[in-house]
Amino acid sequence: MLKDNERLDLIQASGYGIIQNKKWFSYGIDAVLVSHFAEVKSTDVVVDFGTGNGIIPLLIHLNHQPKKIIGIEKQCDVAEMAVRSVAYNKIDSIQILNIDIQDTLQHIKKSSVDVVISNPPYFKKGGALINSGSNKAQARHETTAVLDDFVATAAQVLRPMGTFFMVHRPSRLVDILVAGRQYGLEPKLVQFVQPSQDKLPNIVLVKFVKNGKAELYYKENLYVYDQNRAYTDQIKEIYKNMHIDVF
Amino acid sequence: MLKDNERLDLIQASGYGIIQNKKWFSYGIDAVLVSHFAEVKSTDVVVDFGTGNGIIPLLIHLNHQPKKIIGIEKQCDVAEMAVRSVAYNKIDSIQILNIDIQDTLQHIKKSSVDVVISNPPYFKKGGALINSGSNKAQARHETTAVLDDFVATAAQVLRPMGTFFMVHRPSRLVDILVAGRQYGLEPKLVQFVQPSQDKLPNIVLVKFVKNGKAELYYKENLYVYDQNRAYTDQIKEIYKNMHIDVF
Repeated sequence: MLKDNERLDLIQASGYGIIQNKKWFSYGIDAVLVSHFAEVKSTDVVVDFGTGNGIIPLLIHLNHQPKKIIGIEKQCDVAEMAVRSVAYNKIDSIQILNIDIQDTLQHIKKSSVDVVISNPPYFKKGGALINSGSNKAQARHETTAVLDDFVATAAQVLRPMGTFFMVHRPSRLVDILVAGRQYGLEPKLVQFVQPSQDKLPNIVLVKFVKNGKAELYYKENLYVYDQNRAYTDQIKEIYKNMHIDVF
Repeated sequence: MLKDNERLDLIQASGYGIIQNKKWFSYGIDAVLVSHFAEVKSTDVVVDFGTGNGIIPLLIHLNHQPKKIIGIEKQCDVAEMAVRSVAYNKIDSIQILNIDIQDTLQHIKKSSVDVVISNPPYFKKGGALINSGSNKAQARHETTAVLDDFVATAAQVLRPMGTFFMVHRPSRLVDILVAGRQYGLEPKLVQFVQPSQDKLPNIVLVKFVKNGKAELYYKENLYVYDQNRAYTDQIKEIYKNMHIDVF
Protein backbone atom coordinates (compact mmCIF):
# COMPACT_ATOMS: atom_id res chain seq x y z
CA MET A 1 0.00 0.00 0.00
CA LEU A 2 2.87 2.40 0.68
CA LYS A 3 5.02 3.87 -2.09
CA ASP A 4 8.58 5.23 -1.92
CA ASN A 5 9.16 7.79 0.83
CA GLU A 6 5.74 7.14 2.31
CA ARG A 7 4.92 6.10 5.84
CA LEU A 8 1.70 5.20 7.59
CA ASP A 9 1.16 7.39 10.64
CA LEU A 10 -1.37 5.96 13.04
CA ILE A 11 -3.81 8.34 14.66
CA GLN A 12 -3.23 6.19 17.61
CA ALA A 13 -6.09 6.57 20.02
CA SER A 14 -8.49 6.15 17.10
CA GLY A 15 -7.04 3.16 15.29
CA TYR A 16 -7.15 5.14 12.06
CA GLY A 17 -4.08 5.73 9.94
CA ILE A 18 -2.92 8.44 7.57
CA ILE A 19 -0.41 7.94 4.77
CA GLN A 20 2.18 10.69 4.56
CA ASN A 21 5.06 11.24 2.19
CA LYS A 22 8.23 12.11 4.07
CA LYS A 23 9.33 14.48 1.31
CA TRP A 24 6.04 16.35 1.09
CA PHE A 25 4.03 18.39 3.47
CA SER A 26 3.02 16.41 6.57
CA TYR A 27 -0.05 17.50 8.44
CA GLY A 28 0.55 19.69 11.43
CA ILE A 29 -1.17 21.48 14.24
CA ASP A 30 -3.04 23.77 11.81
CA ALA A 31 -5.06 20.86 10.42
CA VAL A 32 -5.83 19.60 13.92
CA LEU A 33 -6.87 23.04 15.16
CA VAL A 34 -9.17 23.80 12.24
CA SER A 35 -10.74 20.34 12.51
CA HIS A 36 -11.39 21.02 16.19
CA PHE A 37 -12.64 24.57 15.49
CA ALA A 38 -15.15 23.39 12.85
CA GLU A 39 -18.71 22.81 13.99
CA VAL A 40 -20.11 19.75 12.20
CA LYS A 41 -23.37 17.83 12.64
CA SER A 42 -24.05 14.21 11.70
CA THR A 43 -26.51 15.30 8.99
CA ASP A 44 -24.00 17.64 7.31
CA VAL A 45 -22.36 17.50 3.92
CA VAL A 46 -18.81 18.76 4.43
CA VAL A 47 -16.20 19.83 1.87
CA ASP A 48 -12.48 20.31 2.56
CA PHE A 49 -10.67 22.61 0.09
CA GLY A 50 -7.02 21.65 -0.44
CA THR A 51 -7.30 18.44 1.52
CA GLY A 52 -3.70 17.30 0.98
CA ASN A 53 -3.30 13.77 2.31
CA GLY A 54 -6.85 13.87 3.63
CA ILE A 55 -6.12 14.53 7.29
CA ILE A 56 -9.03 16.95 7.79
CA PRO A 57 -11.74 14.64 6.35
CA LEU A 58 -10.30 11.86 8.50
CA LEU A 59 -10.38 13.91 11.72
CA ILE A 60 -13.85 15.26 10.93
CA HIS A 61 -15.15 11.76 10.28
CA LEU A 62 -13.52 10.49 13.43
CA ASN A 63 -15.18 13.16 15.55
CA HIS A 64 -18.53 13.87 13.92
CA GLN A 65 -19.42 11.12 11.39
CA PRO A 66 -21.17 13.56 9.06
CA LYS A 67 -23.25 12.22 6.17
CA LYS A 68 -20.58 12.96 3.60
CA ILE A 69 -17.13 14.56 3.41
CA ILE A 70 -15.59 15.56 0.09
CA GLY A 71 -11.88 16.38 0.09
CA ILE A 72 -10.70 18.41 -2.91
CA GLU A 73 -7.04 18.19 -3.88
CA LYS A 74 -5.59 19.52 -7.09
CA GLN A 75 -2.26 17.68 -7.05
CA CYS A 76 -2.72 14.24 -8.57
CA ASP A 77 -0.18 12.26 -6.57
CA VAL A 78 -1.25 13.87 -3.29
CA ALA A 79 -4.94 13.19 -3.99
CA GLU A 80 -4.07 9.58 -4.87
CA MET A 81 -2.32 9.21 -1.51
CA ALA A 82 -5.43 10.58 0.23
CA VAL A 83 -7.55 8.01 -1.62
CA ARG A 84 -5.33 5.21 -0.30
CA SER A 85 -5.62 6.55 3.27
CA VAL A 86 -9.41 6.57 2.98
CA ALA A 87 -9.32 3.01 1.62
CA TYR A 88 -6.99 1.88 4.43
CA ASN A 89 -9.46 3.23 6.98
CA LYS A 90 -12.46 1.80 5.11
CA ILE A 91 -14.51 5.00 5.37
CA ASP A 92 -17.28 5.07 2.74
CA SER A 93 -18.49 8.58 3.54
CA ILE A 94 -15.23 10.27 2.48
CA GLN A 95 -14.71 11.04 -1.19
CA ILE A 96 -11.52 12.56 -2.61
CA LEU A 97 -11.84 14.69 -5.75
CA ASN A 98 -8.66 15.34 -7.74
CA ILE A 99 -9.73 18.67 -9.24
CA ASP A 100 -8.86 22.34 -9.17
CA ILE A 101 -10.87 24.40 -6.64
CA GLN A 102 -12.01 26.56 -9.56
CA ASP A 103 -13.73 23.52 -11.11
CA THR A 104 -15.66 22.65 -7.95
CA LEU A 105 -19.07 23.63 -9.37
CA GLN A 106 -18.68 21.03 -12.10
CA HIS A 107 -18.78 18.39 -9.35
CA ILE A 108 -20.68 19.87 -6.40
CA LYS A 109 -24.04 21.62 -6.71
CA LYS A 110 -24.41 25.27 -5.82
CA SER A 111 -25.80 25.89 -2.31
CA SER A 112 -25.70 22.16 -1.50
CA VAL A 113 -23.02 22.08 1.20
CA ASP A 114 -23.45 22.68 4.95
CA VAL A 115 -19.82 23.15 5.99
CA VAL A 116 -16.62 24.02 4.14
CA ILE A 117 -13.27 23.63 5.89
CA SER A 118 -9.89 24.73 4.61
CA ASN A 119 -6.25 24.85 5.53
CA PRO A 120 -5.22 26.68 2.35
CA PRO A 121 -1.72 27.40 1.06
CA TYR A 122 -0.32 30.27 3.07
CA PHE A 123 1.87 32.49 0.99
CA LYS A 124 0.76 35.21 -1.37
CA LYS A 125 1.08 34.73 -5.09
CA GLY A 126 4.52 36.10 -5.85
CA GLY A 127 5.19 36.65 -2.16
CA ALA A 128 8.14 34.26 -2.01
CA LEU A 129 10.32 32.14 -4.24
CA ILE A 130 8.62 29.04 -5.50
CA ASN A 131 10.30 25.79 -6.37
CA SER A 132 7.78 24.85 -9.01
CA GLY A 133 8.89 21.25 -9.28
CA SER A 134 8.04 20.45 -5.71
CA ASN A 135 4.72 19.39 -4.22
CA LYS A 136 5.79 21.00 -0.96
CA ALA A 137 6.19 24.32 -2.73
CA GLN A 138 2.80 24.01 -4.35
CA ALA A 139 1.13 23.24 -1.05
CA ARG A 140 2.76 26.19 0.65
CA HIS A 141 2.27 28.78 -2.04
CA GLU A 142 -0.75 30.11 -3.72
CA THR A 143 0.58 29.40 -7.16
CA THR A 144 -2.70 28.33 -8.63
CA ALA A 145 -5.50 28.82 -6.19
CA VAL A 146 -5.35 32.03 -4.26
CA LEU A 147 -7.23 32.86 -1.09
CA ASP A 148 -9.92 34.62 -3.09
CA ASP A 149 -10.67 31.48 -5.13
CA PHE A 150 -11.13 29.46 -1.95
CA VAL A 151 -13.48 32.00 -0.39
CA ALA A 152 -15.43 32.65 -3.60
CA THR A 153 -15.91 28.94 -4.24
CA ALA A 154 -16.89 28.24 -0.63
CA ALA A 155 -19.54 30.95 -0.97
CA GLN A 156 -20.92 29.27 -4.09
CA VAL A 157 -21.23 25.72 -2.77
CA LEU A 158 -22.51 26.64 0.70
CA ARG A 159 -26.22 26.83 1.45
CA PRO A 160 -27.51 30.04 3.06
CA MET A 161 -26.30 30.15 6.70
CA GLY A 162 -23.79 27.43 5.81
CA THR A 163 -20.43 27.80 7.54
CA PHE A 164 -16.82 28.04 6.39
CA PHE A 165 -13.96 27.32 8.79
CA MET A 166 -10.48 28.39 7.77
CA VAL A 167 -7.02 28.31 9.34
CA HIS A 168 -4.52 30.86 8.06
CA ARG A 169 -1.76 33.27 9.01
CA PRO A 170 -2.67 36.34 11.10
CA SER A 171 -0.65 38.55 8.73
CA ARG A 172 -3.29 37.83 6.07
CA LEU A 173 -6.28 38.69 8.28
CA VAL A 174 -7.25 41.78 6.26
CA ASP A 175 -7.25 39.76 3.02
CA ILE A 176 -9.28 37.03 4.70
CA LEU A 177 -11.95 39.27 6.21
CA VAL A 178 -12.20 41.45 3.09
CA ALA A 179 -12.62 38.37 0.87
CA GLY A 180 -15.31 36.99 3.19
CA ARG A 181 -17.30 40.21 3.16
CA GLN A 182 -16.82 40.53 -0.61
CA TYR A 183 -18.20 37.09 -1.42
CA GLY A 184 -21.05 37.09 1.11
CA LEU A 185 -19.35 34.90 3.72
CA GLU A 186 -19.54 37.09 6.80
CA PRO A 187 -16.67 36.54 9.28
CA LYS A 188 -18.39 35.75 12.58
CA LEU A 189 -15.73 34.28 14.88
CA VAL A 190 -11.95 34.50 15.13
CA GLN A 191 -9.51 32.73 17.39
CA PHE A 192 -5.83 33.60 17.53
CA VAL A 193 -3.21 30.99 18.34
CA GLN A 194 0.06 32.08 19.93
CA PRO A 195 3.17 29.86 20.16
CA SER A 196 3.30 30.88 23.84
CA GLN A 197 2.05 33.64 26.16
CA ASP A 198 4.93 35.97 25.30
CA LYS A 199 4.82 35.47 21.52
CA LEU A 200 2.54 37.11 18.97
CA PRO A 201 -0.10 35.00 17.23
CA ASN A 202 1.10 32.93 14.25
CA ILE A 203 -2.13 31.09 13.44
CA VAL A 204 -5.68 32.41 13.15
CA LEU A 205 -8.92 30.44 12.91
CA VAL A 206 -11.89 32.13 11.26
CA LYS A 207 -15.53 31.05 11.04
CA PHE A 208 -17.65 32.59 8.27
CA VAL A 209 -21.42 32.32 7.90
CA LYS A 210 -22.99 32.65 4.45
CA ASN A 211 -25.25 35.73 4.52
CA GLY A 212 -24.51 36.14 8.24
CA LYS A 213 -25.15 39.39 10.11
CA ALA A 214 -22.17 41.72 10.46
CA GLU A 215 -20.78 41.23 13.96
CA LEU A 216 -17.49 39.58 14.86
CA TYR A 217 -17.03 37.44 17.97
CA TYR A 218 -13.86 36.07 19.52
CA LYS A 219 -12.77 32.84 21.17
CA GLU A 220 -10.13 33.01 23.87
CA ASN A 221 -6.59 32.86 22.48
CA LEU A 222 -4.87 29.49 22.36
CA TYR A 223 -1.30 29.10 23.54
CA VAL A 224 0.57 26.12 22.10
CA TYR A 225 3.54 25.83 24.46
CA ASP A 226 3.96 26.63 28.14
CA GLN A 227 7.07 28.05 29.81
CA ASN A 228 8.71 24.62 29.82
CA ARG A 229 8.24 24.22 26.05
CA ALA A 230 5.64 21.51 26.66
CA TYR A 231 2.16 21.58 25.11
CA THR A 232 -0.26 23.62 27.20
CA ASP A 233 -3.31 22.01 28.80
CA GLN A 234 -5.44 23.80 26.18
CA ILE A 235 -3.63 21.99 23.36
CA LYS A 236 -3.51 18.64 25.16
CA GLU A 237 -7.27 18.92 25.68
CA ILE A 238 -7.84 19.60 21.98
CA TYR A 239 -5.70 16.65 20.89
CA LYS A 240 -7.50 14.46 23.39
CA ASN A 241 -10.91 15.64 22.16
CA MET A 242 -9.78 14.93 18.61
CA HIS A 243 -8.66 11.40 19.61
CA ILE A 244 -5.08 12.10 18.62
CA ASP A 245 -2.15 11.21 20.81
CA VAL A 246 0.04 14.21 21.48
CA PHE A 247 3.39 13.46 19.92
CA MET B 1 -14.89 79.41 32.93
CA LEU B 2 -17.08 76.48 33.96
CA LYS B 3 -20.76 76.22 33.07
CA ASP B 4 -23.54 74.22 34.76
CA ASN B 5 -22.73 70.57 35.31
CA GLU B 6 -19.12 71.07 34.25
CA ARG B 7 -16.01 70.29 36.23
CA LEU B 8 -12.32 70.84 35.58
CA ASP B 9 -10.41 67.57 35.77
CA LEU B 10 -6.70 68.05 36.21
CA ILE B 11 -4.38 65.77 34.29
CA GLN B 12 -2.42 65.89 37.43
CA ALA B 13 1.15 64.97 36.71
CA SER B 14 1.10 67.35 33.76
CA GLY B 15 -0.48 70.43 35.25
CA TYR B 16 -2.94 70.52 32.34
CA GLY B 17 -6.68 70.47 32.86
CA ILE B 18 -9.66 69.21 30.87
CA ILE B 19 -13.20 70.51 31.21
CA GLN B 20 -15.81 67.77 31.34
CA ASN B 21 -19.58 67.92 31.60
CA LYS B 22 -20.86 65.52 34.24
CA LYS B 23 -23.95 64.75 32.18
CA TRP B 24 -22.09 64.05 28.95
CA PHE B 25 -19.50 61.57 27.91
CA SER B 26 -16.32 61.82 30.01
CA TYR B 27 -13.10 60.63 28.47
CA GLY B 28 -12.09 57.11 29.35
CA ILE B 29 -9.39 54.56 28.83
CA ASP B 30 -10.10 54.37 25.08
CA ALA B 31 -8.91 57.94 24.53
CA VAL B 32 -5.80 57.32 26.63
CA LEU B 33 -4.98 54.07 24.83
CA VAL B 34 -5.35 55.47 21.33
CA SER B 35 -3.29 58.54 22.28
CA HIS B 36 -0.58 56.19 23.52
CA PHE B 37 -0.89 53.91 20.49
CA ALA B 38 -0.52 56.82 18.02
CA GLU B 39 2.95 57.50 16.63
CA VAL B 40 3.47 61.25 16.33
CA LYS B 41 6.53 63.33 15.49
CA SER B 42 7.21 66.96 16.42
CA THR B 43 6.99 68.01 12.77
CA ASP B 44 3.57 66.40 12.24
CA VAL B 45 0.20 67.93 11.50
CA VAL B 46 -2.32 65.84 13.41
CA VAL B 47 -6.11 65.71 13.13
CA ASP B 48 -8.49 64.14 15.67
CA PHE B 49 -11.90 63.14 14.28
CA GLY B 50 -14.70 63.39 16.83
CA THR B 51 -12.53 65.09 19.42
CA GLY B 52 -15.26 65.51 22.06
CA ASN B 53 -13.94 67.63 24.91
CA GLY B 54 -10.50 67.64 23.28
CA ILE B 55 -8.80 65.03 25.43
CA ILE B 56 -6.87 63.41 22.57
CA PRO B 57 -5.35 66.67 21.22
CA LEU B 58 -4.39 67.52 24.79
CA LEU B 59 -2.69 64.17 25.44
CA ILE B 60 -0.96 64.22 22.05
CA HIS B 61 0.32 67.74 22.68
CA LEU B 62 1.46 66.80 26.15
CA ASN B 63 3.47 63.84 24.85
CA HIS B 64 4.69 64.84 21.40
CA GLN B 65 4.29 68.62 20.87
CA PRO B 66 3.52 68.22 17.17
CA LYS B 67 3.46 71.29 14.94
CA LYS B 68 -0.33 71.43 14.86
CA ILE B 69 -3.31 69.45 16.14
CA ILE B 70 -6.80 70.03 14.79
CA GLY B 71 -9.68 68.53 16.75
CA ILE B 72 -12.92 68.17 14.80
CA GLU B 73 -16.18 68.04 16.75
CA LYS B 74 -19.62 68.29 15.22
CA GLN B 75 -21.62 69.07 18.37
CA CYS B 76 -21.53 72.79 19.02
CA ASP B 77 -21.66 72.80 22.81
CA VAL B 78 -19.09 70.00 23.09
CA ALA B 79 -16.72 71.76 20.68
CA GLU B 80 -17.14 74.98 22.64
CA MET B 81 -16.15 73.16 25.83
CA ALA B 82 -13.04 71.80 24.06
CA VAL B 83 -12.15 75.36 23.00
CA ARG B 84 -12.31 76.48 26.63
CA SER B 85 -10.06 73.58 27.72
CA VAL B 86 -7.48 74.56 25.09
CA ALA B 87 -7.67 78.17 26.26
CA TYR B 88 -7.31 77.13 29.90
CA ASN B 89 -4.15 75.24 29.03
CA LYS B 90 -2.85 78.06 26.79
CA ILE B 91 -1.88 75.74 23.93
CA ASP B 92 -1.59 77.64 20.65
CA SER B 93 -0.96 74.62 18.47
CA ILE B 94 -4.37 73.05 19.11
CA GLN B 95 -7.30 74.23 17.02
CA ILE B 96 -10.88 73.01 17.50
CA LEU B 97 -13.16 72.98 14.44
CA ASN B 98 -16.89 72.76 15.07
CA ILE B 99 -17.80 71.04 11.79
CA ASP B 100 -19.18 67.79 10.48
CA ILE B 101 -16.52 65.21 9.49
CA GLN B 102 -18.03 65.22 6.02
CA ASP B 103 -17.14 68.90 5.62
CA THR B 104 -13.50 68.39 6.59
CA LEU B 105 -12.16 69.08 3.09
CA GLN B 106 -13.65 72.57 3.19
CA HIS B 107 -11.22 73.32 6.03
CA ILE B 108 -8.24 70.99 5.64
CA LYS B 109 -6.37 70.46 2.38
CA LYS B 110 -6.31 67.06 0.71
CA SER B 111 -3.14 65.02 1.42
CA SER B 112 -1.88 67.65 3.88
CA VAL B 113 -2.06 65.72 7.15
CA ASP B 114 0.55 63.36 8.64
CA VAL B 115 -1.51 61.63 11.32
CA VAL B 116 -5.24 61.17 11.92
CA ILE B 117 -6.47 59.84 15.25
CA SER B 118 -10.00 58.85 16.16
CA ASN B 119 -12.08 57.47 18.97
CA PRO B 120 -15.27 57.39 16.92
CA PRO B 121 -18.82 56.70 18.11
CA TYR B 122 -19.16 52.97 18.61
CA PHE B 123 -22.59 51.77 17.71
CA LYS B 124 -23.91 51.03 14.29
CA LYS B 125 -26.45 53.31 12.71
CA GLY B 126 -29.77 51.80 13.76
CA GLY B 127 -28.00 49.23 15.90
CA ALA B 128 -29.51 50.44 19.16
CA LEU B 129 -32.10 52.84 20.47
CA ILE B 130 -31.00 56.43 20.33
CA ASN B 131 -32.12 59.16 22.68
CA SER B 132 -31.84 61.88 20.11
CA GLY B 133 -32.03 64.74 22.59
CA SER B 134 -28.87 63.73 24.39
CA ASN B 135 -25.25 64.59 23.58
CA LYS B 136 -24.20 61.37 25.22
CA ALA B 137 -26.38 59.44 22.77
CA GLN B 138 -24.90 61.31 19.86
CA ALA B 139 -21.35 60.59 21.00
CA ARG B 140 -22.10 56.91 21.47
CA HIS B 141 -24.05 56.31 18.30
CA GLU B 142 -23.22 56.79 14.72
CA THR B 143 -26.30 58.81 14.07
CA THR B 144 -24.66 61.19 11.69
CA ALA B 145 -21.11 60.12 10.95
CA VAL B 146 -20.63 56.43 10.37
CA LEU B 147 -17.37 54.51 10.46
CA ASP B 148 -17.09 54.72 6.69
CA ASP B 149 -17.19 58.53 6.73
CA PHE B 150 -14.37 58.64 9.25
CA VAL B 151 -12.18 56.26 7.26
CA ALA B 152 -13.00 57.83 3.88
CA THR B 153 -12.26 61.33 5.17
CA ALA B 154 -9.05 60.24 6.89
CA ALA B 155 -7.92 58.77 3.56
CA GLN B 156 -8.59 62.10 1.83
CA VAL B 157 -6.75 64.40 4.23
CA LEU B 158 -3.74 62.11 4.83
CA ARG B 159 -0.60 62.38 2.75
CA PRO B 160 0.70 59.18 1.11
CA MET B 161 2.15 56.94 3.86
CA GLY B 162 0.33 59.09 6.42
CA THR B 163 -1.07 57.13 9.35
CA PHE B 164 -4.49 56.73 10.91
CA PHE B 165 -4.86 55.43 14.48
CA MET B 166 -8.30 54.30 15.61
CA VAL B 167 -9.77 52.80 18.75
CA HIS B 168 -12.98 50.82 18.34
CA ARG B 169 -14.91 47.74 19.38
CA PRO B 170 -13.54 44.32 18.34
CA SER B 171 -17.03 43.30 17.19
CA ARG B 172 -16.68 45.86 14.38
CA LEU B 173 -13.25 44.64 13.20
CA VAL B 174 -14.53 43.37 9.84
CA ASP B 175 -16.20 46.72 9.10
CA ILE B 176 -13.03 48.55 10.15
CA LEU B 177 -10.59 46.50 8.07
CA VAL B 178 -12.91 46.38 5.05
CA ALA B 179 -13.37 50.18 5.16
CA GLY B 180 -9.61 50.69 5.43
CA ARG B 181 -8.88 48.49 2.43
CA GLN B 182 -11.73 50.09 0.48
CA TYR B 183 -10.50 53.66 0.95
CA GLY B 184 -6.79 52.97 0.51
CA LEU B 185 -5.86 53.02 4.20
CA GLU B 186 -4.20 49.65 4.64
CA PRO B 187 -4.58 48.18 8.16
CA LYS B 188 -1.00 47.48 9.29
CA LEU B 189 -1.14 46.90 13.05
CA VAL B 190 -3.77 45.77 15.52
CA GLN B 191 -3.71 45.51 19.28
CA PHE B 192 -6.50 43.91 21.28
CA VAL B 193 -7.31 45.06 24.79
CA GLN B 194 -8.90 42.61 27.23
CA PRO B 195 -10.54 43.65 30.53
CA SER B 196 -8.48 40.85 32.12
CA GLN B 197 -6.64 37.65 31.17
CA ASP B 198 -9.82 35.55 31.33
CA LYS B 199 -12.07 37.94 29.41
CA LEU B 200 -12.44 38.42 25.67
CA PRO B 201 -11.17 41.67 24.10
CA ASN B 202 -13.53 44.66 24.31
CA ILE B 203 -11.29 47.29 22.74
CA VAL B 204 -9.19 47.15 19.58
CA LEU B 205 -6.55 49.59 18.38
CA VAL B 206 -5.83 49.74 14.66
CA LYS B 207 -3.08 51.54 12.74
CA PHE B 208 -3.65 52.18 9.03
CA VAL B 209 -1.08 53.43 6.53
CA LYS B 210 -2.24 55.30 3.43
CA ASN B 211 -1.22 53.26 0.39
CA GLY B 212 0.56 50.79 2.71
CA LYS B 213 1.55 47.26 1.63
CA ALA B 214 -0.93 44.50 2.53
CA GLU B 215 0.45 42.77 5.62
CA LEU B 216 -1.01 42.93 9.11
CA TYR B 217 1.13 42.97 12.25
CA TYR B 218 0.12 42.59 15.88
CA LYS B 219 1.10 44.16 19.19
CA GLU B 220 0.88 42.04 22.31
CA ASN B 221 -2.56 42.10 23.91
CA LEU B 222 -3.16 44.56 26.72
CA TYR B 223 -4.91 43.49 29.91
CA VAL B 224 -6.57 46.27 31.87
CA TYR B 225 -7.15 44.64 35.27
CA ASP B 226 -5.24 41.98 37.16
CA GLN B 227 -6.71 39.24 39.37
CA ASN B 228 -7.16 41.72 42.23
CA ARG B 229 -9.18 44.09 40.04
CA ALA B 230 -6.31 46.59 40.10
CA TYR B 231 -4.80 48.09 36.95
CA THR B 232 -2.10 45.86 35.47
CA ASP B 233 1.49 47.02 35.23
CA GLN B 234 0.96 47.39 31.47
CA ILE B 235 -1.79 49.95 32.03
CA LYS B 236 0.01 51.74 34.86
CA GLU B 237 3.02 52.08 32.58
CA ILE B 238 0.90 53.56 29.79
CA TYR B 239 -0.74 56.10 32.11
CA LYS B 240 2.66 56.99 33.49
CA ASN B 241 4.10 57.42 29.99
CA MET B 242 1.12 59.59 29.13
CA HIS B 243 1.72 61.73 32.25
CA ILE B 244 -1.69 60.87 33.66
CA ASP B 245 -2.23 59.84 37.24
CA VAL B 246 -4.05 56.53 37.45
CA PHE B 247 -7.35 57.24 39.15
